[in-house]
Amino acid sequence: MGCSENSQLKIVTGEAGYVLEDVPHLTDYITDLPTYPNPLRFNPAYSVVKQYFVHVDDTVPQKIVVHKNSPRGIHFRRAGPRQKVYFESEEVHACIVTCGGLCPGLNTVIREIVCGLYHMYGVSRILGIDGGYRGFYARNTITLTPKVVNDIHKRGGTILGTSRGGHDSSKIVDSIQDRGINQVYIIGGDGTQKGAAVIFEEIRRRGLKVAVAGIPKTIDNDIPVIDKSFGFDTAVEEAQRAINAAHVESESIENGIGVVKLMGRYSGFIAMHATLASRDVDCCLIPESPFYLEGKGGLFEYIEKRLKENGHMVIVIAEGAGQDLLSESLQSMNLKDASGNKLLQDVGLWISQRIKDHFARQHNKMVINLKYIDPTYMIRAIPGNASDNVYCTLLAQSAVHGTMAGYTGFTSGLVNGRQTYIPFNRVTERQNKVVITDRMWARLLASTNQPSFLDPKDVTEVKKEEEPQTQLLDGENCKDGSLAKDIPSLT
Amino acid sequence: MGCSENSQLKIVTGEAGYVLEDVPHLTDYITDLPTYPNPLRFNPAYSVVKQYFVHVDDTVPQKIVVHKNSPRGIHFRRAGPRQKVYFESEEVHACIVTCGGLCPGLNTVIREIVCGLYHMYGVSRILGIDGGYRGFYARNTITLTPKVVNDIHKRGGTILGTSRGGHDSSKIVDSIQDRGINQVYIIGGDGTQKGAAVIFEEIRRRGLKVAVAGIPKTIDNDIPVIDKSFGFDTAVEEAQRAINAAHVESESIENGIGVVKLMGRYSGFIAMHATLASRDVDCCLIPESPFYLEGKGGLFEYIEKRLKENGHMVIVIAEGAGQDLLSESLQSMNLKDASGNKLLQDVGLWISQRIKDHFARQHNKMVINLKYIDPTYMIRAIPGNASDNVYCTLLAQSAVHGTMAGYTGFTSGLVNGRQTYIPFNRVTERQNKVVITDRMWARLLASTNQPSFLDPKDVTEVKKEEEPQTQLLDGENCKDGSLAKDIPSLT
Amino acid sequence: MGCSENSQLKIVTGEAGYVLEDVPHLTDYITDLPTYPNPLRFNPAYSVVKQYFVHVDDTVPQKIVVHKNSPRGIHFRRAGPRQKVYFESEEVHACIVTCGGLCPGLNTVIREIVCGLYHMYGVSRILGIDGGYRGFYARNTITLTPKVVNDIHKRGGTILGTSRGGHDSSKIVDSIQDRGINQVYIIGGDGTQKGAAVIFEEIRRRGLKVAVAGIPKTIDNDIPVIDKSFGFDTAVEEAQRAINAAHVESESIENGIGVVKLMGRYSGFIAMHATLASRDVDCCLIPESPFYLEGKGGLFEYIEKRLKENGHMVIVIAEGAGQDLLSESLQSMNLKDASGNKLLQDVGLWISQRIKDHFARQHNKMVINLKYIDPTYMIRAIPGNASDNVYCTLLAQSAVHGTMAGYTGFTSGLVNGRQTYIPFNRVTERQNKVVITDRMWARLLASTNQPSFLDPKDVTEVKKEEEPQTQLLDGENCKDGSLAKDIPSLT
Amino acid sequence: MGCSENSQLKIVTGEAGYVLEDVPHLTDYITDLPTYPNPLRFNPAYSVVKQYFVHVDDTVPQKIVVHKNSPRGIHFRRAGPRQKVYFESEEVHACIVTCGGLCPGLNTVIREIVCGLYHMYGVSRILGIDGGYRGFYARNTITLTPKVVNDIHKRGGTILGTSRGGHDSSKIVDSIQDRGINQVYIIGGDGTQKGAAVIFEEIRRRGLKVAVAGIPKTIDNDIPVIDKSFGFDTAVEEAQRAINAAHVESESIENGIGVVKLMGRYSGFIAMHATLASRDVDCCLIPESPFYLEGKGGLFEYIEKRLKENGHMVIVIAEGAGQDLLSESLQSMNLKDASGNKLLQDVGLWISQRIKDHFARQHNKMVINLKYIDPTYMIRAIPGNASDNVYCTLLAQSAVHGTMAGYTGFTSGLVNGRQTYIPFNRVTERQNKVVITDRMWARLLASTNQPSFLDPKDVTEVKKEEEPQTQLLDGENCKDGSLAKDIPSLT
Repeated sequence: MGCSENSQLKIVTGEAGYVLEDVPHLTDYITDLPTYPNPLRFNPAYSVVKQYFVHVDDTVPQKIVVHKNSPRGIHFRRAGPRQKVYFESEEVHACIVTCGGLCPGLNTVIREIVCGLYHMYGVSRILGIDGGYRGFYARNTITLTPKVVNDIHKRGGTILGTSRGGHDSSKIVDSIQDRGINQVYIIGGDGTQKGAAVIFEEIRRRGLKVAVAGIPKTIDNDIPVIDKSFGFDTAVEEAQRAINAAHVESESIENGIGVVKLMGRYSGFIAMHATLASRDVDCCLIPESPFYLEGKGGLFEYIEKRLKENGHMVIVIAEGAGQDLLSESLQSMNLKDASGNKLLQDVGLWISQRIKDHFARQHNKMVINLKYIDPTYMIRAIPGNASDNVYCTLLAQSAVHGTMAGYTGFTSGLVNGRQTYIPFNRVTERQNKVVITDRMWARLLASTNQPSFLDPKDVTEVKKEEEPQTQLLDGENCKDGSLAKDIPSLT
Repeated sequence: MGCSENSQLKIVTGEAGYVLEDVPHLTDYITDLPTYPNPLRFNPAYSVVKQYFVHVDDTVPQKIVVHKNSPRGIHFRRAGPRQKVYFESEEVHACIVTCGGLCPGLNTVIREIVCGLYHMYGVSRILGIDGGYRGFYARNTITLTPKVVNDIHKRGGTILGTSRGGHDSSKIVDSIQDRGINQVYIIGGDGTQKGAAVIFEEIRRRGLKVAVAGIPKTIDNDIPVIDKSFGFDTAVEEAQRAINAAHVESESIENGIGVVKLMGRYSGFIAMHATLASRDVDCCLIPESPFYLEGKGGLFEYIEKRLKENGHMVIVIAEGAGQDLLSESLQSMNLKDASGNKLLQDVGLWISQRIKDHFARQHNKMVINLKYIDPTYMIRAIPGNASDNVYCTLLAQSAVHGTMAGYTGFTSGLVNGRQTYIPFNRVTERQNKVVITDRMWARLLASTNQPSFLDPKDVTEVKKEEEPQTQLLDGENCKDGSLAKDIPSLT
Repeated sequence: MGCSENSQLKIVTGEAGYVLEDVPHLTDYITDLPTYPNPLRFNPAYSVVKQYFVHVDDTVPQKIVVHKNSPRGIHFRRAGPRQKVYFESEEVHACIVTCGGLCPGLNTVIREIVCGLYHMYGVSRILGIDGGYRGFYARNTITLTPKVVNDIHKRGGTILGTSRGGHDSSKIVDSIQDRGINQVYIIGGDGTQKGAAVIFEEIRRRGLKVAVAGIPKTIDNDIPVIDKSFGFDTAVEEAQRAINAAHVESESIENGIGVVKLMGRYSGFIAMHATLASRDVDCCLIPESPFYLEGKGGLFEYIEKRLKENGHMVIVIAEGAGQDLLSESLQSMNLKDASGNKLLQDVGLWISQRIKDHFARQHNKMVINLKYIDPTYMIRAIPGNASDNVYCTLLAQSAVHGTMAGYTGFTSGLVNGRQTYIPFNRVTERQNKVVITDRMWARLLASTNQPSFLDPKDVTEVKKEEEPQTQLLDGENCKDGSLAKDIPSLT
Repeated sequence: MGCSENSQLKIVTGEAGYVLEDVPHLTDYITDLPTYPNPLRFNPAYSVVKQYFVHVDDTVPQKIVVHKNSPRGIHFRRAGPRQKVYFESEEVHACIVTCGGLCPGLNTVIREIVCGLYHMYGVSRILGIDGGYRGFYARNTITLTPKVVNDIHKRGGTILGTSRGGHDSSKIVDSIQDRGINQVYIIGGDGTQKGAAVIFEEIRRRGLKVAVAGIPKTIDNDIPVIDKSFGFDTAVEEAQRAINAAHVESESIENGIGVVKLMGRYSGFIAMHATLASRDVDCCLIPESPFYLEGKGGLFEYIEKRLKENGHMVIVIAEGAGQDLLSESLQSMNLKDASGNKLLQDVGLWISQRIKDHFARQHNKMVINLKYIDPTYMIRAIPGNASDNVYCTLLAQSAVHGTMAGYTGFTSGLVNGRQTYIPFNRVTERQNKVVITDRMWARLLASTNQPSFLDPKDVTEVKKEEEPQTQLLDGENCKDGSLAKDIPSLT
């Protein structure tokens, strides 16, 4: 047993291979901080709870499929209210910011941070930063009260507005200091959480009593460690409409092909789950699974085969699929959008055109009827469904409990069905991806009957690439490599 | 380390408090059964999967919040395909039966058992038993093929028909023998799974090579051990419509009260989650939380208070809530329905009448306008949503993998996000209930601001009653009692 | 050609049997009222309209199926903006009140009166009366501006609140005078429009320059003359959910019977249209069509027949159907609710019980499984669909144009697809009913295959009763009696 | 009074300017056809109907807003069952074909023709032609029975398949003769109805006893004379989702612009009604209303103004809007698609790019965030809503009654709320368009506050162009030009 610590890493080890990756705390760099009894102690709603406060030793394992003698692996600190808090209610001045693209549930998270702070901790000074990170130094703020946020969970979008990238951490921390803010709630994706880590480091460097909490937002479910990101469920549900439409359109015409583009720049979770839920999809293309168009075992051959068998087919393609092919075609991949992501060309329009071209130029002409559907914005803009609303509530409340307890530089996240606090670096260091050598993808292949687009050489290659993931510390997989989650994004 | 075994209990123990509660296997009572290589080995869809087959030692812990030195507790066998199977494809003659009330996703489970057997294991002889357990000896069967079940997941209900109770295990096993069935898939609730256990015991007694798998079905989410039951998500989502309607009706009239009855005979999970997801509910009444009407701290007092503050209110009541009060009123509780459950009087109509009576007879008359909504059948009858469809697929495929691998007398269930095989007794010995001394209920109380309807004496009493649950073997809670799941029914 | 006029009746006749039933005007009882040019003349939106103002002679015939030599019959004044208005923008002080039960589209009508007055006529003093007629003398008012009403059409219910009956016309007119209100918009059903007529008479008696406009609201579509009432379309659409649920429930169980109660106290339009739209209904019972339970040709016989043929069935019953039977059973029909309608006992619960009793006591027992669904409040409380939203807009704008032009004591209504002004007495003197000797009902009978529940004697009787409707002045039917509308409530 | 007749025109005139445009009848070119009593006479469902059969003199006026002395104008023959029919039940061999793009309600029309023929007239030989007109001579047919079509109205698309254009009337009539078909039901749009007219002429030329009935299908509502086309209501409803999404997306980001493309090649009814129903649209662009981008009064100026005022805006554009501008840009307008319509470039992508380019190249840079949504296929592919389902039923039944009664060469259509038979030429000779000098468009302009994009010169020009429409025979408008329908496409 021991404890090693640096600015980003607090590791605690225990018996039988137990490892705790802890999150920073205000007391790591500020000494002699006073504590106060948690006001929840006096809340009538909690008076019936036998032991409401989280035990100081509670942790949650990342690895869940175990052998009776296997090492216990990485754990995270359990989220929830603590006996003692490091802020007095009147002292707190919180702010909330939302960054990046829209995602169902954003307004619910905002609502529940506000209501959680107000009703559980008696905090009434809460600012909404307007329009993403930029709003810190460039725009007006919005006063947030339970009344203001009362109905917002029934609306899509974010009442705070949002924007991509383009921020200056130093100026943001200046703004935080100037306004006297001491709790910062940052809702956003991968890039946003990286930004939050930098802001946290700057605050720590300046020695400020300011807690920084991240709530990971990515409709694509591409954040690692956590079970699923909020809004994902709603997105998969809503995607069914587009797939149904593609199915009806393709069925009603000879050699009808319905192409549906779904979200997923770097990971194909939405496409995969939407395909599994629908059962009307004949081919699902995702960024993780390379494919090719021409020749034996290629997409065109498969399309021709399905049309001859069935007379119609539905293709689901994630927005980030086939980027290498698209890039070959277009050679315009040096564009960047404001958040630093590659500005991806629309792969749906591209592949639709390629398919049309292929069948137009065939010798033995096969007249196809292709309909392309891009439901992206219609999916992103709806409010969270019931399941996501409950999930958003728990994420928001966990973040509030964490900052009140003095934790900082952490992300609120669900790990194996339990709320935890995860260090920033763990959620930003890599992306969650569909493991195409895993069973969930096998289920999809079995469901669509599509080719794997891999030759034996590729399979070996993929295996080798993924080897590092199977090491012990990753926690998700142990040596035999077969242990990835059954419902990684549902849980 | 050791191993104890009786007809219902196969326990394996390991280091650091590791306990495996294993499921029966055909070889437990039939010797010299031949095995065959799993046909999935030759399935193109699975050829890319590095190590598709589940390791013989893979298990999943029931306890997920741990301390670094806490004992490891109960584990279940991981579900999934095995290297060797105990049935040849041509040998298999499977049947599927659905029992009890409707639940979103039933047709998806049927579809995926059929498609799983057919596409993964090459099984083509599959019978649908018509109309529940009774169908075994009393009615025609339905031939099930992938074509027959192709679109059924888009429809509510069950294509096999269903019924309650009233079966004779001995005659059912006779029928199984007569028809030459060797795999039995039983989809149903608590009572049905108990029936399945009896059928399994009879099969074992007769020494038949017949595998029995249960898929737990309960829209109420009242089956223990598993994370959530299929259809639950869909039910909570659909319940929002009724709550919204109650909210609109009550808001539009002076002293408007909207009362919504939701499913939940013995557990209030749907009511609790629907309330948390909606945020428009002022009072949520569930079977687990006793309440009273008259006097200080009672429901009538709270209603009057809310109406005076807000002018309207919404009450959600689970169908099994307040049974003691109702029973006092009606004294008609010795009725039984066919499945052996108490035939509960309609608590929604009853409480609506009591509230009306109360305000009608008050001295200082307060004219109320109460609207009662019972969306039960409108919720039960819809098809599963996308999330439930994916979940049903995994449950069905796990059951198929299990029976092919020779396991029997087991339930397919999700534990901490992983598919597992659970002994029947574990899912039937008690009911999953909302723990009202836990944090999820505290969140609800905080959200509605309703009284706890408990006086200090009651709280102590409740604590005492629930003590047994906190023992080690239960797995869900450890000694400090604070470890119940964050999202017990979402995960 | 001539013109006769009394307090309620302004009749203008013309050639070939042309009759105009005109509406009152402020100048009927106030002389020397100044007029002003219509401000729309200067509205950029209307500058492209060639001849926006309605011609003084424009009228709309009530009778639409004609013979080449048939008399032209009753006409109504066409709605729309007039060249001259009788109010200056700054002078107007309008109020809006909503009465009776909820109906989809109420908020849209409110919104469009406010926006119409503000944007088209520059009127900014608009009061919302809180909680129905009573609100005139008993409660606070709500200031209505385009901003306040901007999003309300997306919500169900009425932001003004509502109540039933119980008003004192004299006190209401006092309140109108005291507050200086000169335009009164009254949204409500049959009883409400009768009240509006009395208020108008009182205003006229006092010689006040106050215009009174009614917008007929009845989800049941039971207001005569007009093509359909707003909200009806939405209600029929939403009713499909309940019918689908009943269908799924009944199909999934042996001898399953699904009973759905739909709105319709005195007329069965919702039940009839919902049945025609669904095609899953085996029996539709409405107030206009008497039926009986026992014996040959009765309901029980039909149920037994359908169950034997199909194994399940769906019954739709309008809330006012079978009142005579129910009354025999219960003899409790002397209750009244506040609006003066008979407080109808719940016919759905009653008939469900009667069916259960019948099959329970049969000698040759047939075990049935009956599920009863009452979606009433879930239907009433949703917002208007797109079609109703457009319709509500036109109704509201017509009312505004009418009052600005000095018309009063009128109802805004759609007649044969055109907006018209109809005298109050025409919409309150009788109720719109399904004509069961007409083709629409024949279509329904053909679709459900249910018995007509009539013996030849009854048919003759029904014919005789309805004879008065076929006279010329009724306008809807001409002598041959076969001319009722094809889509009376859709158009 | 008199009667003139040619192959396409049967005109009957009467007193007071009464004109009947009658439809052809088999007896026009075949003499001595025997007649039979209508079998409905013996149908129990119709036994209660007093006078079910349509009077031989029943007609419906096209003009509905009248003056007391105005001429009566054009009338159409009322649809419905006749006393005598010209086909015996066993003799009938019917076929149904669907052509052109998908439209909600197609399957309902198919279902109701089949059920109408079968249940009302005892016809059991009904063929479905597979894949549009081509199917007559090139593909297999589908046997249609009430059982086959029982549930199809709950699915989008057409079970018969469809295709565009490419037919040879002579070969089609050969096929009709060869197969012994004597009733042809043709469901399709403008081009399809023109094709039906040619087929009818060829049949007449050959003197065949084959009745040809058209059911007009156009989701765009661009067929003249009739009140609205089926599927239109559903389309406007479903379009709300896309507009809502555009609204949420644009509101959530600085200078957000949501662009939604809706159906409407030549007419903007869907765009107009969807805009009026939504109230979130700031600009609606339709084919009928020319607009320009640059300069004073242009679109860019308006966008800039709205963004400065509101920070966001929503633009709805019909697919056929701005074709002249697009054509200038692209000069690629000589392409034709198979049906002979211009293959329109995607105006939504084009205008989105133009807006982006404009704001990118401005000196004083205004960074905009544009999101483009094209919900076309998601709208087309859904099943009809309740209102459209009832409407489709009536259209189908009218067509069946008409052919059985020997009428041919007619279209079944709703005129002023009544089912009528309309000669083909009347529905194909021009297209129904939004009259931008009429009140409905004025309402839209008032609702969006968008500029009219017209200068006074244009207005005059538009007026002049539309003059011909205002002549008497057109029926829709009389001289004062103000008489266009209030709800032209809703009624």
